[in-house]
Amino acid sequence: MLVRPKQGILDPQGAAVETALEHLGFSVSGARVGKVVDLEVEASTSDDARAQVEKMCEQLLANPLMESYEVEIHG
Amino acid sequence: MLVRPKQGILDPQGAAVETALEHLGFSVSGARVGKVVDLEVEASTSDDARAQVEKMCEQLLANPLMESYEVEIHG
Repeated sequence: MLVRPKQGILDPQGAAVETALEHLGFSVSGARVGKVVDLEVEASTSDDARAQVEKMCEQLLANPLMESYEVEIHG
Repeated sequence: MLVRPKQGILDPQGAAVETALEHLGFSVSGARVGKVVDLEVEASTSDDARAQVEKMCEQLLANPLMESYEVEIHG
């Protein structure tokens, strides 16, 4: 799953990455830093897997005030 | 772009996520935590954009000893 700072929420890590890249000579804008969490779940269907991972995001991995999340199911 | 700990590299953040999820009652394994960086670059083609972002990963965003990266170009 991907967990990203919501639009409008200050992202100091993204700002630091942008400044560092500019100092290296890159032309970049709008840098935002979030996290990617990969894990395996036991599930009989991909819908079941998705529901479980959404619950994990809501209960632990994403702060709903400041972060949005996106779930991808593979295999 | 996505930056993840390489296989075989210890990932304490992933281990902590896995333990916390298990305590919440989820059956998960193999949790690994990396980062997602979204940014805009000035490029004339998507190949050019990809080459720039790969350079950013190599020079700043990924530690080649411990992390692998994956670049996705949109728009």
